[in-house]
Amino acid sequence: MEKIITLMTDFGTKDGYVGAMKGVILGINPQCTVVDITHEISPQGVFEGALVLGNTYRSFPRGSIHLAVVDPEVGTQREALVVETEGYYFVGPDNGLFTWIYRREEVKQAVGIRNRDFFPKTISQTFHGRDIFAPVAAHLSLGQEPEKFGVKLDRWSEIDIPEPKTTDKGLTGEIIHIDRFGNLITNLPRRLLEPLTRQGSLQIHIQGRRISGLKNAYAEARKGELMAIFDSFDLLEISLMGDSAGEALRAAKGDRVELFLP
Amino acid sequence: MEKIITLMTDFGTKDGYVGAMKGVILGINPQCTVVDITHEISPQGVFEGALVLGNTYRSFPRGSIHLAVVDPEVGTQREALVVETEGYYFVGPDNGLFTWIYRREEVKQAVGIRNRDFFPKTISQTFHGRDIFAPVAAHLSLGQEPEKFGVKLDRWSEIDIPEPKTTDKGLTGEIIHIDRFGNLITNLPRRLLEPLTRQGSLQIHIQGRRISGLKNAYAEARKGELMAIFDSFDLLEISLMGDSAGEALRAAKGDRVELFLP
Amino acid sequence: MEKIITLMTDFGTKDGYVGAMKGVILGINPQCTVVDITHEISPQGVFEGALVLGNTYRSFPRGSIHLAVVDPEVGTQREALVVETEGYYFVGPDNGLFTWIYRREEVKQAVGIRNRDFFPKTISQTFHGRDIFAPVAAHLSLGQEPEKFGVKLDRWSEIDIPEPKTTDKGLTGEIIHIDRFGNLITNLPRRLLEPLTRQGSLQIHIQGRRISGLKNAYAEARKGELMAIFDSFDLLEISLMGDSAGEALRAAKGDRVELFLP
Repeated sequence: MEKIITLMTDFGTKDGYVGAMKGVILGINPQCTVVDITHEISPQGVFEGALVLGNTYRSFPRGSIHLAVVDPEVGTQREALVVETEGYYFVGPDNGLFTWIYRREEVKQAVGIRNRDFFPKTISQTFHGRDIFAPVAAHLSLGQEPEKFGVKLDRWSEIDIPEPKTTDKGLTGEIIHIDRFGNLITNLPRRLLEPLTRQGSLQIHIQGRRISGLKNAYAEARKGELMAIFDSFDLLEISLMGDSAGEALRAAKGDRVELFLP
Repeated sequence: MEKIITLMTDFGTKDGYVGAMKGVILGINPQCTVVDITHEISPQGVFEGALVLGNTYRSFPRGSIHLAVVDPEVGTQREALVVETEGYYFVGPDNGLFTWIYRREEVKQAVGIRNRDFFPKTISQTFHGRDIFAPVAAHLSLGQEPEKFGVKLDRWSEIDIPEPKTTDKGLTGEIIHIDRFGNLITNLPRRLLEPLTRQGSLQIHIQGRRISGLKNAYAEARKGELMAIFDSFDLLEISLMGDSAGEALRAAKGDRVELFLP
Repeated sequence: MEKIITLMTDFGTKDGYVGAMKGVILGINPQCTVVDITHEISPQGVFEGALVLGNTYRSFPRGSIHLAVVDPEVGTQREALVVETEGYYFVGPDNGLFTWIYRREEVKQAVGIRNRDFFPKTISQTFHGRDIFAPVAAHLSLGQEPEKFGVKLDRWSEIDIPEPKTTDKGLTGEIIHIDRFGNLITNLPRRLLEPLTRQGSLQIHIQGRRISGLKNAYAEARKGELMAIFDSFDLLEISLMGDSAGEALRAAKGDRVELFLP
């Protein structure tokens, strides 16, 4: 059955762990298309994984199966999940990795994986990606019903997503991700800011630096200019034209970003 | 329709940007085969991207679509291109990323992408890879004619490729790429050097070091010996047997390489 | 013909070398599924490549073709191999990269690649991955018989795999791999240790630190606790809960691990 299974992990690519997962999947469903989202999530970075998955899953066609493993508690009693939403399936540990999914998709069902018929007799306690999640995703891609994998759950774990705070003078947010280019992604969404920008030019303070107003494209800034823009996931992003804002500002995840209304 | 779409970007693999592009492509053409050339082009390294694409595109079967995004001017008026040559299609920004292609392939047509029918209603100004180039490449893979995407152009951008210079005593070239192994790739092509090597042993000077003659295989050198060889793209390459020439010589792109005739 | 070809190399992903190999393979067999095991084997790390391949190949369905290139002697007289075992095919240089395969699989035949009909007229002396191994693997995936590629061999190269040593007080092994998470993989296999653990709690000494007994899951340890566990390939692994054991212990490949019986 031709289905897409995406993979997102913190396994890196140097040890062959991801290769092993793909081998298992293709052994069960040779027709499926396996696509990497990323394997460079920081080791045990559940928040980072949740964010990247939340930004990416909707670019895939409906019916795609998203297999995500960032799993510090592998081998413990933490639940292993199959989540079905209106548009997609998600397979992975129940540790909040799907938090953005729960906020954006209607959950049709969440199943705790229990049925050992779908995985090998011997299961390692360190690599459920290969021994549990990969076979479950592959059988799902063959048309197996989610409820066949175990028991329906009525609750699941979420992680805290930092929310912007309203202040007397405007809004305070924070950096939630720094991308490959050194762009600083904040938790300040377009829907919150766009009404404000209509009133005039926003002032943005970050790490002692000030930015006045938002740009519509990177190239509206001069080389070396610090700028603010809505990124491709509709979050406010701080960039340094032609360079890394992250390095120049010595910025880190969690750093505060203050917005002052015009 | 079963077609190959290759991807080359400077997006890295940690943020899911490449995954999003693949999702868009497979949503439009589930039958196509998406192959990564690389996503590790240095951020905004148009020259590097042009070189890697120039070295790689011909290894793919005729009819393949090469989607390349290294795009410092994303969101500005820079043209977005579909280029058709005798053997291949190329999709990406008009900033010289296809310079080696123009030198090696006959361009049948170059089309400036204008037709918004092929991409989503809302387009981010920071991620044309996902919102413009991926859908265009996918529709192209379905058999859409290049001219359907916009207007035919009669000019396009190129970058400067440094040319070897003739001197009294021989030739001067430069390092244009340093690969993963620390091999120093120069702009001195086999077709220029091979006639000279028939006259005797070339002397090569680089970073104050001297190399006498060319080897036919890495393993003709002793461990730790600096050597010159024609690489797999028929360019003169300086290597350090069993080690990184780049690190040992503290070499950088742009460093001079002098050839003295026998 | 729908077959799986896996790729494992030390080429990295930044230069497009792997992309070129995939282009060649898909040009010969557009129907095959190409899967990356890893391209991040340390440059010329034959031992590391052999270990990662040995740990991974069996996760793929029977009949898969494993193309592996870590090839310091490219361009010399070293043999190029097609190896057929009961379950799999292996293509790559004859330098010991398949040592773990020879120990775990019954070799049906090993063929030295000689037949130039299967590769391009001009062959680079630096990139047999593209010019020899990729076309051979692709033709193999089309159903070509291994013996068609050259001559049957009755011997092939192996590398030394360090074996655990018995001492008066127990066993001495060593670190043979450090993974992405900083887990220290040893050469001490479960089959050797499990009988001993039944007698009581093993004492493990490494880099002046002591570990008492084995855990069944990472999460049985406290945060910051050094622990021992059997990894997903049934080798003893030393881990630091929530952190990198490799960094904390300044451990390196080859470091000694001593086991004392209860």
